[in-house]
Amino acid sequence: MSISEFDIISKYFNQAGITPEAGSTLVYGIGDDCAIVDVPEGKQLVLTMDTLVADVHFFSGDEPAAIARRAMVANISDLAAMGADALAFTLSLTMPKADEAWLESFSEGLRQMVKTYSCPLIGGDLTQGPLSITIQAHGLVEKNRALMRSGARPGDLVFVTGELGAAGLAVSLIKNGMSLQQQDRQDLYQAYYNPQARLEFARQGREKISAAIDISDGLLADAAHIALMSSVNLELQASRIPVAGAVKSILGNLGDRSKGLNHALTAGDDYELLFTASADQESALMEIAAGMKLKLSRIGLVVESKGADRMNRVRCLDKSGDEITLGKVGYRHFS
Amino acid sequence: MSISEFDIISKYFNQAGITPEAGSTLVYGIGDDCAIVDVPEGKQLVLTMDTLVADVHFFSGDEPAAIARRAMVANISDLAAMGADALAFTLSLTMPKADEAWLESFSEGLRQMVKTYSCPLIGGDLTQGPLSITIQAHGLVEKNRALMRSGARPGDLVFVTGELGAAGLAVSLIKNGMSLQQQDRQDLYQAYYNPQARLEFARQGREKISAAIDISDGLLADAAHIALMSSVNLELQASRIPVAGAVKSILGNLGDRSKGLNHALTAGDDYELLFTASADQESALMEIAAGMKLKLSRIGLVVESKGADRMNRVRCLDKSGDEITLGKVGYRHFS
Repeated sequence: MSISEFDIISKYFNQAGITPEAGSTLVYGIGDDCAIVDVPEGKQLVLTMDTLVADVHFFSGDEPAAIARRAMVANISDLAAMGADALAFTLSLTMPKADEAWLESFSEGLRQMVKTYSCPLIGGDLTQGPLSITIQAHGLVEKNRALMRSGARPGDLVFVTGELGAAGLAVSLIKNGMSLQQQDRQDLYQAYYNPQARLEFARQGREKISAAIDISDGLLADAAHIALMSSVNLELQASRIPVAGAVKSILGNLGDRSKGLNHALTAGDDYELLFTASADQESALMEIAAGMKLKLSRIGLVVESKGADRMNRVRCLDKSGDEITLGKVGYRHFS
Repeated sequence: MSISEFDIISKYFNQAGITPEAGSTLVYGIGDDCAIVDVPEGKQLVLTMDTLVADVHFFSGDEPAAIARRAMVANISDLAAMGADALAFTLSLTMPKADEAWLESFSEGLRQMVKTYSCPLIGGDLTQGPLSITIQAHGLVEKNRALMRSGARPGDLVFVTGELGAAGLAVSLIKNGMSLQQQDRQDLYQAYYNPQARLEFARQGREKISAAIDISDGLLADAAHIALMSSVNLELQASRIPVAGAVKSILGNLGDRSKGLNHALTAGDDYELLFTASADQESALMEIAAGMKLKLSRIGLVVESKGADRMNRVRCLDKSGDEITLGKVGYRHFS
């Protein structure tokens, strides 16, 4: 039996737990040509849009709830990187047919994310075509207080939340098949299918942070964005990079420990925050992270950019201060 | 030679004529995790998202500039239906490969629309996958003055801008092939490939309008949305429906004049405005339309909804007041 787009919207998307609660004063959602958003005086709206395409950014056979979680976290993570409070999101869902079991699971994944990040659905589009999901997330910041990539200053310290590389390794695992210990497999799947956006950490820490970015394209590539936009260089210490335990164990077992580091610095799919802060904020930031049981690592230093090293803004140093040569940097869609 | 996503963005999208002009105070565009939008005191932000999928909403072989125009107009038309001023848009472009000739034409189409509607690009995403275009348009309205579907009152008149049915007939023409006179063919192509959003008419007329919707899904289907949301019925006069000349001539030549009316009332792809206004606003609205050489037709009347006709809220009457039975109503994606 076929189901119309209007019925899909009302049955799976325009319902309690997904759309704004009754009496919500900031947003008016689904049901007119446009949604309407109120931005309180003294605030600015920030917005970000990400598309996930089947078999490019996720596997078509993934649990639909997990696809929804990943699509939401990719966007909420960008709000976190601006130090924003989440406000609402829009969704354009393109799918080959109206599969109600798929929609049931997908909308349940959305519902979890709406609750976790207090970010309801206020509009979007539903079309027939090859499976893909576009989400635009909207957040609020105090006027002129958004965390920009351009705010890092020489002398600032460099931090990263969480542990790196597990989600990216899960992708290789699923693509290529790998014989793994049960625990390693679970850790990788958890990282990939249940990513966390660091919205709450950024909210509590934003006054103490000078520049931030989310590292969905890989730490090194995204560190280079901060360096470039701030006109500084970054010196990272290899020994301080928080390589995920499962990554160390799996890639170490493959015979080369440096592979774990290389992977953690270049793999995508980690929705962690890379940020800079002045040294006198370190203990306060560590305390905030500890309070929410979030691992926070100081991984390096912001230094002045001299004429000669404009092309090599991010260096990763070993314990004796020598530069480590790393592989491919970051995820680039068309190269 | 392959080109990276960063190079595509800087070469085709992040450039003068597409992104905000230097010194623009309302929006900060491409180059950070999120774009930032200022909403002036006393205003509200309205937003709308539409996805166009290749070979569902356009033909993959269409001129890329025309695809860009149609994607923009689909969204700008929703801003017009709210009586909003255009502010800025975001774009998620998914394409199978980076074809520079395609990108050159597509970005030229965007540039035309940015200029026509004063609506610059402030962010988005670029991914590899089956060709599709998602745009979210953002506009500003005076607080609590957006034109809603729910504002029609019994006694109001019903109006529609422009002429109907030509774009929808162009789609049939392209799909099925048809032997047409040169002029008819040109008129249909013009309607389909160069649609106009009625942003300026809505801007000038918004104080005089009680409810509005854009009729991209077909006049009858969209009229039903106004009727339902306003808890009224609409009575349309068949003889007043502005069927496009080419549609009358082509479908008339096929031997059945009523086909033209039926097609004009149910075809999609017209980005005209259907709206209601009290009778004392008619002459002022006609004058605004005449001032911009836009056809404006009074096509019916808003009447009270009585218990019995809740399921049949929009009726189309012939000259003797009898109801005309029409075919399939509106475009529904999954039914």
